[in-house]
Amino acid sequence: MKIGFIGLGHMGAPMALNLVKAGHEVRAFDLSEDALRLVADGGAKLAGSAREAAEGAEFVITMLPAAVHVRRALTDENGVLAGLAPGATVIDSSTIDPASAQAFGELVRERGGAFVDAPVSGGTGGAAAGTLTFMVGGSVAEFERVTPVLTGMGRNVVHCGPTGMGQVAKVCNNLVLGISMAGVAEAMSLGVALGIDPKVLGGILNTSTGRCWSADTYNPYPGVIETAPSSRGYTGGFGTDLMLKDLGLANDAAKQVRQPVYLGALAQQLYQTVSSRGDGRLDFSAVIRLYQMPASKDSR
Amino acid sequence: MKIGFIGLGHMGAPMALNLVKAGHEVRAFDLSEDALRLVADGGAKLAGSAREAAEGAEFVITMLPAAVHVRRALTDENGVLAGLAPGATVIDSSTIDPASAQAFGELVRERGGAFVDAPVSGGTGGAAAGTLTFMVGGSVAEFERVTPVLTGMGRNVVHCGPTGMGQVAKVCNNLVLGISMAGVAEAMSLGVALGIDPKVLGGILNTSTGRCWSADTYNPYPGVIETAPSSRGYTGGFGTDLMLKDLGLANDAAKQVRQPVYLGALAQQLYQTVSSRGDGRLDFSAVIRLYQMPASKDSR
Amino acid sequence: MKIGFIGLGHMGAPMALNLVKAGHEVRAFDLSEDALRLVADGGAKLAGSAREAAEGAEFVITMLPAAVHVRRALTDENGVLAGLAPGATVIDSSTIDPASAQAFGELVRERGGAFVDAPVSGGTGGAAAGTLTFMVGGSVAEFERVTPVLTGMGRNVVHCGPTGMGQVAKVCNNLVLGISMAGVAEAMSLGVALGIDPKVLGGILNTSTGRCWSADTYNPYPGVIETAPSSRGYTGGFGTDLMLKDLGLANDAAKQVRQPVYLGALAQQLYQTVSSRGDGRLDFSAVIRLYQMPASKDSR
Amino acid sequence: MKIGFIGLGHMGAPMALNLVKAGHEVRAFDLSEDALRLVADGGAKLAGSAREAAEGAEFVITMLPAAVHVRRALTDENGVLAGLAPGATVIDSSTIDPASAQAFGELVRERGGAFVDAPVSGGTGGAAAGTLTFMVGGSVAEFERVTPVLTGMGRNVVHCGPTGMGQVAKVCNNLVLGISMAGVAEAMSLGVALGIDPKVLGGILNTSTGRCWSADTYNPYPGVIETAPSSRGYTGGFGTDLMLKDLGLANDAAKQVRQPVYLGALAQQLYQTVSSRGDGRLDFSAVIRLYQMPASKDSR
Repeated sequence: MKIGFIGLGHMGAPMALNLVKAGHEVRAFDLSEDALRLVADGGAKLAGSAREAAEGAEFVITMLPAAVHVRRALTDENGVLAGLAPGATVIDSSTIDPASAQAFGELVRERGGAFVDAPVSGGTGGAAAGTLTFMVGGSVAEFERVTPVLTGMGRNVVHCGPTGMGQVAKVCNNLVLGISMAGVAEAMSLGVALGIDPKVLGGILNTSTGRCWSADTYNPYPGVIETAPSSRGYTGGFGTDLMLKDLGLANDAAKQVRQPVYLGALAQQLYQTVSSRGDGRLDFSAVIRLYQMPASKDSR
Repeated sequence: MKIGFIGLGHMGAPMALNLVKAGHEVRAFDLSEDALRLVADGGAKLAGSAREAAEGAEFVITMLPAAVHVRRALTDENGVLAGLAPGATVIDSSTIDPASAQAFGELVRERGGAFVDAPVSGGTGGAAAGTLTFMVGGSVAEFERVTPVLTGMGRNVVHCGPTGMGQVAKVCNNLVLGISMAGVAEAMSLGVALGIDPKVLGGILNTSTGRCWSADTYNPYPGVIETAPSSRGYTGGFGTDLMLKDLGLANDAAKQVRQPVYLGALAQQLYQTVSSRGDGRLDFSAVIRLYQMPASKDSR
Repeated sequence: MKIGFIGLGHMGAPMALNLVKAGHEVRAFDLSEDALRLVADGGAKLAGSAREAAEGAEFVITMLPAAVHVRRALTDENGVLAGLAPGATVIDSSTIDPASAQAFGELVRERGGAFVDAPVSGGTGGAAAGTLTFMVGGSVAEFERVTPVLTGMGRNVVHCGPTGMGQVAKVCNNLVLGISMAGVAEAMSLGVALGIDPKVLGGILNTSTGRCWSADTYNPYPGVIETAPSSRGYTGGFGTDLMLKDLGLANDAAKQVRQPVYLGALAQQLYQTVSSRGDGRLDFSAVIRLYQMPASKDSR
Repeated sequence: MKIGFIGLGHMGAPMALNLVKAGHEVRAFDLSEDALRLVADGGAKLAGSAREAAEGAEFVITMLPAAVHVRRALTDENGVLAGLAPGATVIDSSTIDPASAQAFGELVRERGGAFVDAPVSGGTGGAAAGTLTFMVGGSVAEFERVTPVLTGMGRNVVHCGPTGMGQVAKVCNNLVLGISMAGVAEAMSLGVALGIDPKVLGGILNTSTGRCWSADTYNPYPGVIETAPSSRGYTGGFGTDLMLKDLGLANDAAKQVRQPVYLGALAQQLYQTVSSRGDGRLDFSAVIRLYQMPASKDSR
């Protein structure tokens, strides 16, 4: 397949390279020269603009930080829409709000193209290993069309419903994640303050009704799960500022449909506090430090 | 074994009967004549007081609503301590605060007995089926001594550490549970309001980082999990008022060790609101109704 | 003075008419024909576009629902900037986020104009009576220049600092207001549930450390303050949806500077819940209904 | 009058001495010898027990840390009830939960005495200066009987309704206070982070709808109100741990009547965090430090 790829950051670059490895012809664009050089070394062709990346491509993939960047990449004078081939499909893998995804879908369809939103989970590790999960919003036909492309970059490709529903799935999943991580942090800290061994408590949670990914795979208490970021100083993993962005998207989406998100709003403030202390780049499980006042003072 | 059993409510009665079935000689006491008749029909002997139930028993089990009742059952003139045989072991399976459990342990040891706290999870269904989980606080010797008795009533018997740690484990597990259930309720309601199919969203959560017992086993959105209380009008299951009691214990324990529990305190208010509307007997997953204003107006 | 006035809604129309009464020559523009007719009847001249309203004016006032509308009114082909006379001053009295106000100030200054943000408090009643308070952000020279104009529409004109600080003052004031109103609602409901007479409790608050505008002027409990919206079915006053908008601005501004707003975020969810029940047009003191479950069921 | 006085702490001692100054015959009891010596030097007689303090007294005043101490002072073998003269009146000025106050009222009436709850506001400063406010719960006759005694120690004596309503008034006032202080802390911190001058913002709040005691008298931002604890390092004033105690009473009372207290529960966690950092003795307005991460790191 001929694929245009726009956005070669920590996620986009390895994704583009995996497409090259899967045998696709990839034409990539980014504003950063360094990013371009990196993917060129890996076998991608380079484009001078989003428009050029789109020209002649069957699929155009965007992987950008926020909706404002996607809008620009699509609608600028030298943007994707200006070069989009008839019948080509735009895949936006950025994490953005559902309403913007739906608006971008309409713009692309007006120009005769197809569109899916396909945000990912799995982080930079999954992007490099090609084991990402894609949550896809679009028609059944669109979903079937993009699946072979997405399997070049990930392991699971899930159809979440019509346009925008990929973003809804991601934002709702991360809402649960942000809440449950802070909840586990709260309970682990309380339990240890009351005298229980953290590994014992972790074991109880994992075999009982408190079982969750935040406890059994990514426990925020150091030493409970050896492979979790908490056991290596909260490095690597999913940054607090990224969780903050996703909780912001959840709260904004909730505002649009006038839906209360009590715990989500409070969790957002907890991660905000971590970030305001200068720890926004630490893994989001570092939220547990808010519950360990004296210890965290020592460790800083 | 000769076992005294005090407290024959919805949990205690089936537990006592399972001990009889397991071949133990059970002498039971409760203030309710109906409860006494029920277990007598099942083969238990009856005692006229907690003291009488304790006299001559190797184990005395208490299963009572709150710490105040346990204290009375132990220390009243006709209470357990007055009749406790030298070397007998008191097992308190009530859910109470850890500090009270520790205080009761001291009282029993002063009288020459042994003590474990052993609160359960598994609900009335688990009590009847003999599949409860016991979270045990006590010395290794005490844990080994009580295990054969507890396996007569449950499937898992977990050593959580010294006296009180069974209660700590339970309260911390239910703190996570109360938070994650409300979090899943929030995310499912938001997702559906944004247009996603609830079963699709449930599936996403269960295979992603939002995975948790509250989503994959007990999803609060009706129809997602056929066996969950939400799919039968929030009947059966774990009552909202019981969750409220456990979150109250968590918050009280947190106060004692000056540990903040932000999400726990907010979750408590959410269940409080459900209860204040007269729905305290519904399964705690009914908290989702707070997020579905118009629907819940129709359904009431 | 020659004044262009853009935005003739419930606030803008009476403000424009007060400027006419104060002897100014007002040229008004709005997209609604009805609004135009109303102010024409009151003596204002009409403009066919924002540009036309701006042409030849010494002051241009914008009073619009949100930042997106102000941006359009300024920068559209037929917008204010296209017609702005050299040395003219733009006064934006809309309530918007501080960062947008600062951006608009730069745009205007690039075109050779002056700019102040001047959001108001006092509601539609204050707009009609000419008793509004203006919170002004701009240089001292700008503040002095706009004061004579603003006193034609209000009683208090307060200098809050450089550009954007008018918005900061408004958003911070309304953050306190939204929190304290919900706090008073919580305490009044609790007190009454515990048996105290609401007027007695109101009196205690007002003479003690709980004293605040939400208690002594606008008490949310019906009958405590005869002139408050709560004593007339929560009609009139400051709508819940407007409070929701302002708390949204506060939370957005907080996100930009990575500042936690715990209580503000939670209060926003409370007003969100009121709005999601269809009560967004009621005065924001109707938030007390969230605390009076059975009573509010009866009254609905 | 002959008055027994039990509890000679930071509040009780100056209160007892003011009664002596007002010409009453005061017989005082405390477990601390130092406290006894202090009031003896001021002219009070000493009693060897609560019972002895009560014997022959027309009024018995208790001023103790918590309900558990009041219960002991009343019901111990050598307690007040054992020595209470027929027709004597017990005044409990401790801050405790309303239900306990009502229970104590019943105990005293069973012994033929009268009872009012009369918690105070005004702090140690008000106790020394004799300017306390008393919030009195009891019948009209009881209120009239105690007024002359209470005016010996305070300036305002307010009748709040039947027994327990003095405590209800206090707990509800302090619930509003705890919330509004944290709200003002949040808004002041946000405003300053956005660039406004704290004194300007303080001025805006105090003349607008954000007006409250926490802003105009006790503003938590240093330097805004010269006489506030915030302007002298948060020393003096009303300790964080005392606010924590009162919010705990509010939340417990709310639990009893199944009333949600969303903001109160969250505010409690904020003060809990301050206390868990070791700052429980600082004035409660130090809660603003939670919002000023980098600054507070420097200053610690």
